[in-house]
Amino acid sequence: MSSMEAVVLVGKKPTMNYVLATTLPLAEGKKVLLKARGRAISKAVDIVEVVRRRFVQNAVVEKVNIGTEEGRVGADGKPRNVSTIEILVSVPEQPAKKGK
Amino acid sequence: MSSMEAVVLVGKKPTMNYVLATTLPLAEGKKVLLKARGRAISKAVDIVEVVRRRFVQNAVVEKVNIGTEEGRVGADGKPRNVSTIEILVSVPEQPAKKGK
Repeated sequence: MSSMEAVVLVGKKPTMNYVLATTLPLAEGKKVLLKARGRAISKAVDIVEVVRRRFVQNAVVEKVNIGTEEGRVGADGKPRNVSTIEILVSVPEQPAKKGK
Repeated sequence: MSSMEAVVLVGKKPTMNYVLATTLPLAEGKKVLLKARGRAISKAVDIVEVVRRRFVQNAVVEKVNIGTEEGRVGADGKPRNVSTIEILVSVPEQPAKKGK
């Protein structure tokens, strides 16, 4: 079944860790939802691009959502909003050999 | 005409500069395409979120594209790829007052 979905939360680990965590479920036919906040947003985009270009060439970006997460408290005690991104990546089903 | 499109290139200036540069064309009914590379990707998402939440509440994200720009040369002389994002923001046309 390709309807299963893996979630990868992008944080402070090296990019290649997340590239691997994204590539493996894709290789099993799962979709992968990458989620990142704040500065990790750029890293999430890097991860998707590395996966698409070097590891799973037929992977496609199905959807990109951006948003805001409220109520996190900064160092000064004031509430801070932080931007978020969600990128859904999948591998289109192979056309069956019998055609269609 | 709301089919015109303004382009905002997101770089190293303060976020609010780009927020203003995005808000003004939206207020005139234009679409705005924000483009960013590398670390500025997170800032581009911040800008869109600030615009949507504080300045143009009915603005919508029409499309988000991510990609890679090749061939930039890093400090060590090796070619570097850099991730890119393009976010298209617009304000839906007001429903006519006569209702529909």
